[in-house]
Order: sequence, then C-alpha cells, then structure tokens
Amino acid sequence: MVKLNTHYTKLAGNYLFPEISKRARNRTSTAPLVDLGIGDVTRPLPPAIVQALSQASLEMGNASTFRGYGPSAGYDFLRGAISQYDYKHLIHPEEIFISDGAKCDIANIQEIFCSSNRVAVPDPTYPVYLDTTVMAGRTRLQLKNGRYGGVVYLACTEENNFCPLPPRESCDLVYLCSPNNPTGSAMNRELLKQWVDYAKKTKAILLFDGAYEAYIRSPGIPKSIYEIEGAKEVAIEIRSYSKTAGFTGLRLSYTVIPKALKIFDCGREHSLHALWQRRHDTKFGGAPYPIQKAAEAIYSSPGKEQVREMIEIYSQNAKFLREGLEQLGLTVYGGLDAPYVWCKAPNNLSSWNFFDLLLNQAGIVSVPGSGFGLLGEGFVRFSAFADQTKLTEALTRLRAHL
Amino acid sequence: MVKLNTHYTKLAGNYLFPEISKRARNRTSTAPLVDLGIGDVTRPLPPAIVQALSQASLEMGNASTFRGYGPSAGYDFLRGAISQYDYKHLIHPEEIFISDGAKCDIANIQEIFCSSNRVAVPDPTYPVYLDTTVMAGRTRLQLKNGRYGGVVYLACTEENNFCPLPPRESCDLVYLCSPNNPTGSAMNRELLKQWVDYAKKTKAILLFDGAYEAYIRSPGIPKSIYEIEGAKEVAIEIRSYSKTAGFTGLRLSYTVIPKALKIFDCGREHSLHALWQRRHDTKFGGAPYPIQKAAEAIYSSPGKEQVREMIEIYSQNAKFLREGLEQLGLTVYGGLDAPYVWCKAPNNLSSWNFFDLLLNQAGIVSVPGSGFGLLGEGFVRFSAFADQTKLTEALTRLRAHL
Repeated sequence: MVKLNTHYTKLAGNYLFPEISKRARNRTSTAPLVDLGIGDVTRPLPPAIVQALSQASLEMGNASTFRGYGPSAGYDFLRGAISQYDYKHLIHPEEIFISDGAKCDIANIQEIFCSSNRVAVPDPTYPVYLDTTVMAGRTRLQLKNGRYGGVVYLACTEENNFCPLPPRESCDLVYLCSPNNPTGSAMNRELLKQWVDYAKKTKAILLFDGAYEAYIRSPGIPKSIYEIEGAKEVAIEIRSYSKTAGFTGLRLSYTVIPKALKIFDCGREHSLHALWQRRHDTKFGGAPYPIQKAAEAIYSSPGKEQVREMIEIYSQNAKFLREGLEQLGLTVYGGLDAPYVWCKAPNNLSSWNFFDLLLNQAGIVSVPGSGFGLLGEGFVRFSAFADQTKLTEALTRLRAHL
Repeated sequence: MVKLNTHYTKLAGNYLFPEISKRARNRTSTAPLVDLGIGDVTRPLPPAIVQALSQASLEMGNASTFRGYGPSAGYDFLRGAISQYDYKHLIHPEEIFISDGAKCDIANIQEIFCSSNRVAVPDPTYPVYLDTTVMAGRTRLQLKNGRYGGVVYLACTEENNFCPLPPRESCDLVYLCSPNNPTGSAMNRELLKQWVDYAKKTKAILLFDGAYEAYIRSPGIPKSIYEIEGAKEVAIEIRSYSKTAGFTGLRLSYTVIPKALKIFDCGREHSLHALWQRRHDTKFGGAPYPIQKAAEAIYSSPGKEQVREMIEIYSQNAKFLREGLEQLGLTVYGGLDAPYVWCKAPNNLSSWNFFDLLLNQAGIVSVPGSGFGLLGEGFVRFSAFADQTKLTEALTRLRAHL
C-alpha cells in the first residue's frame, strides 16, 4: 500500500500571497492600487538579450544549427562567460552548473546531504529555505509560534543590522542570503569571514544565495562568498539571472560547487561536485539552449551596458523609496544594496496592521514582514521593482495619510 | 558535522555512454560511423514552432507584452490546449502540470511518497527510474548481478513480448513505459487494464511514462493510461515534448495528476494533486514563457501538420530499419509503435560482443541492451532518429559483414 511523504503534512499553509490578494480586493481605499508588494521584475528584457534569444530560436529551425540534448550542467559558452565575467576566473567553468532557477537549486541541493543534517536559516528569510527543509524531513513539527523544531534560526534584527551571526549551537547546512530578501541588508567581509571560519571549525556547509549581488552599491561589500579566503572549501554559491537580468520569465540560474569542496563520511572523502554532477545527469535535462544563449548575451558589450542600466533604474528606485520613507519619519533599512526596503511599522503596529493601514488609507500594497518569519513581525517589505512614477505617487499618498 | 546522502554511494557508475564513446573512438572499422545509438532527435523544429518561439522572444523585449514569473504549473493557454487536443477533455487543464522535462518529473514525483515505499521497474528499462529510486534511498545495496535489493523487477522478455505483467509480490510505486524504451514494445488495452486492476487491489500507484505515445501506429493500442476505466484513481501520467515534437533542446513536458487520485495515510485522505501542486509552488519556478508558447504552437493547424510529418519520418525510419534487419535474418522487436528497434544478438553473442561486432565490422553504433538491465543482455537497441540515407548505408554494410 502506497504511503505519503508525511513531512509534507507538517508544512504550514501557503497563505501569505493569497491573503494579500484577498485583502487588496476588499480594501476600503478607492485610490488605484500601487503594488509595492511584488517581488517580480517589471522592465522588459534588454535588446541584446532579446536578439540573442530570437536568433537562437531561429537556429533551432535549421538542420545545420539545430541543438538537441545539451550538457546537463550547461553549455561551455555560458559556463566560460560566467567564469570570466562574474568570477574573473576565480571559479573554473567546470565548477559552474547551469540550471532552470535558483529556487530549484536552493531546494534540490539538500538532496545530496544526509536527511539527519541540521539546517540553519535566517529569520526573517526567503520562505523556500525553510519550506524545503520541512519537505525533506529535516524538521520536527511546527510550534505554536510558527517555528519548526529541529531548525536553527539565525536572528536578523535591528541590533545586528539584519545580518546573522554564527550561532553557538551546531548546524550542518547554513542558508545565507546577501544582499538579503526581505530585509535588504548585505553582509560585510568581516562577517562573511566569521561564517567561513565557523563552517571550517564545525564542518558545516554554507549555502550562499547571491540572487541580489548585482544591487550591491556600498564599497567593500563582497559580491561572492568566494571573495573570502578558504570559502571554496566550505561554500556552495547559488545565483540567479532573475533579478540581475530580468529573467524571471526565462528561468535561468547557476550554482557553483568548487572542486575543493569535500566532505568526509563513511570512511572516505567525497566530492560534492561529483555528487551534484551525478544528480544533474540523472535528474535534470539541462536548461533550454535558446535561454542559455540569451544569458550569454548578458556578457556581450551591449548586453553588459543594457543590463547595468536596467539594474541602475531599480537601484535608484530603491534609494528613492528609502529616502522618501525616511523623510516621512519612518525607520527603514535596506534599499541601498538591494531592491527591497524593510520598513518598521510605526506606533508598535503589527505587520498585518501596518499592511492594512497602508492598503486602506493609501491604496499601497506591501508584504507583511511576519510572512518571512517570527522576527519579521513589526515590519513590512516594500519592493522597488515598480516604476518611479508609481513610487512618487505612493510617497505622496503616504505623506497625506500617515 | 555535515553528512552525505549515502544512498548516492550505492549508485553504479554512469559508464554506459562514456564506454560506448570510448569504444567508438578506438574502433577497427575505417568506415565513417553511422550512429544508431543516439536517443536524441535530429530534425530541426518545424516552422510553426520556431515562429511561435521567436515571436514570444520578441514579446519579452516589449514592456506591454513582457512576462515575469508565470504560474508554477504552467500557463492556462498550454494546459488548455493539452486538455483539448491530447486528452479530448478527458483530463481537466488543472490536472496538468507543465515542467521542464519528463526526466525531472519521473525523478521528482517520488518525493511526495514515503521513503519506505517499494518501487517496481521494468527490466530492461530507461535507467532513470531505477537510479532515482536508489538516490531516494528506496533500495538496498547493489547485488553482483547489477540488480538492487528491495526493488521489484518486472521481467520484459520475448515470452511476454517485452510487456511487463503485474507481479505476485507487492509494490507501492510502479513505473510503466509504453511504448517502451528500449524495447519499442507497446502495451495493449487488456494488459493496461490488468495493471489498473492490480493497482486498485493492492493500493499501488502507477507512474505511466508516455514519452513515445506519438509513435503508436498499431490499432487499438492506448495512447494514454486514462483510456482505461478507473485509471484516474491509480495513475499518474508523464509525457514529454522531446520525442513527440523535437523539444530535446527546449526542455518541456507535462505530468497529469487527476484530482480523483487520493491516498489514505495518517488517518485521512490526501490529494496527490494538492501535494504535487505544493511541490511545484515551493521547489519549481515554472517553465520559460517562450518555450510554453512554442509548445502551444504544436496544437495550431500548421503545427499539428508539421509535427505529424516529422514523427511520420521517424516512424517510417523505424519500420524501414526493422524490416531491413529482419531481411538479414535477425530477430527484431519494436520499431512499429516506437522509434527504437530491439535486436537480438545472433549466435548467442552478449550485448557488448554484438555491439563490438557491429562497430568494428560495419562502423555502426548501437546501445548494448545489458545497459538497460539484466534482462537486456543478448540484445542491442537501434534508434531511428537518424536520416534514411544513413539507415540505408547501415543496412548495406550489415548485409556485407554479417
């Protein structure tokens, strides 16, 4: 008789965004909605990328240029470009695995590790780290406060500028995200060094999510965990073209597993690179050829310039939003190295109460911080993926209503 | 201290195709290679599909038509077309989950089931069913004969025309593939009915791989498991555009999980549809918009005609190859409802010995049947994804050398 993966039944309902939509529909404000909740990009793909994508599409219709199955870890032309431009040859092309989305890799990477391994996640955080940990059976039941037994929660609070410190407890797999979703904070070199040292000492693996690296503007903030000496022996880095090049609808990302990354188990050393290669070969068919060609164009001269301009617009939006909220007397974080602004609710309002106030007084949609974890309570997240007219409109309305 | 998923260490080496390439390089035949080993399509994408793909690419460059994140289970335009054209509304669009490859779904579907569930696989078979079962910890160690403890092997032999019968032993998850890779056999209605009855009686789930359904030519052979009454309560069907529309380089497939498919566990009924939806939402970001538009074009009037013509060419090739081998006095199976011909080695040669003979005498690459399982020994697989000139050349050489 077939049985269920009962770990799925431990999952909390996926109600955050449905609840936001429901409240938005039932709002009392008559003003047209300004959606600053959205975590999706809004600008079209730059011309150099579109050209490469449609050129590759045409190649698929010609017998002499048609491509069938590609290498499961991606084409050399793209792995080579990443090695050269994103890593200045610090990472070898063979250490780069192309995939169809950072979310998939963030989730699937757990598979090569033992199910008894203990996972640490920041709080607040991108929900996928925790949900996939639950699904893989690495937690106990959910507690009344929404947390799960068996997980190490890394506090991200105003006191540590929302940058998690290595814990006293032991853990085996540590999700880190810098710049961070939802708080918009970025970890500095000293802190990342502490994490690398912690991982070496405790034989933990860092799973470093660099989805927002393109938004870093503050001098000295590392864009990659591999800028820290020794990180190649303890860290896996996951990056996405979603937010750095507007690829949310194209689905492309990559994961770096250095060949120096080994773990000792069952009496011998194992290469995580080899294990992940085996997983790719067996369970993944590679990313589509035209999409990989589109990504290659990001590294062409016009592509680089066009992508830079696009990110600059989102970055300017984030800064504009942050400063506007500050001028209203609100306490805000993020927005300097990330497309998100993390805003403290005034008057000790809860996340949902501040959300409702913003929605019903000013017709503005945000995301309640409590949706990202227990320590997100009392905050909301604003996204800067809207255009500046809408951001100006939002700030004008807030000025009138707050 | 981080630990390994030690089930990965049980996996046999992935040496089949590397070994084939190595032997091909070191062959003694001086004739140019004719590759009938390849399991990849060779014809370019039809014009209607290319047009839709490049049109959608251009849409991505325009603010008014740009698409970001799509629904994780796929766009309604594609799910609706599948429901209408592939299933004549027998399956509801909401029961269809679009993904980036049948291989991924075949592997990932195991995740929603308990790790103690017992898996049955045909022998010989597509290696992914078994490898992913090993990786998920559903087997014991590999035995000397290459089989794994804890797996139910379903014999596919000349006696049963390579169509597996329900076993006497109990099993929980059953992989079935019809038309079959590598043997090219297709299961008839009576046998599929036996499987549905077996699953109902033993509360097992059928995982039905229909990747080659477009090649069915024999009258009365079901194209879908859902043509069998009651199958919606016991079967998941996985289909791919790889072989049916030449999408190996575009990566698109779909999985059907009927809403009627429930399992009883932990004191209540669970919907597998809901579990898979949750997995999609949490661990998958959806398939690329342009690729989904390309798949939609398969169902347009010109698309249907162009795809039909392409499949007809491969089908004719398979028939031509089968008949040519028969005329040489070889014992052959498949090739009528599938793009593969399954050929018995003459004179009791082993798979590898026959492979070597074909390679070194005639410069022909095949795939040794033993690479697909213990019961594949004594056979080789030929693929019909080559063009007819090459097939003719292959048969001429065989006539001279066998």
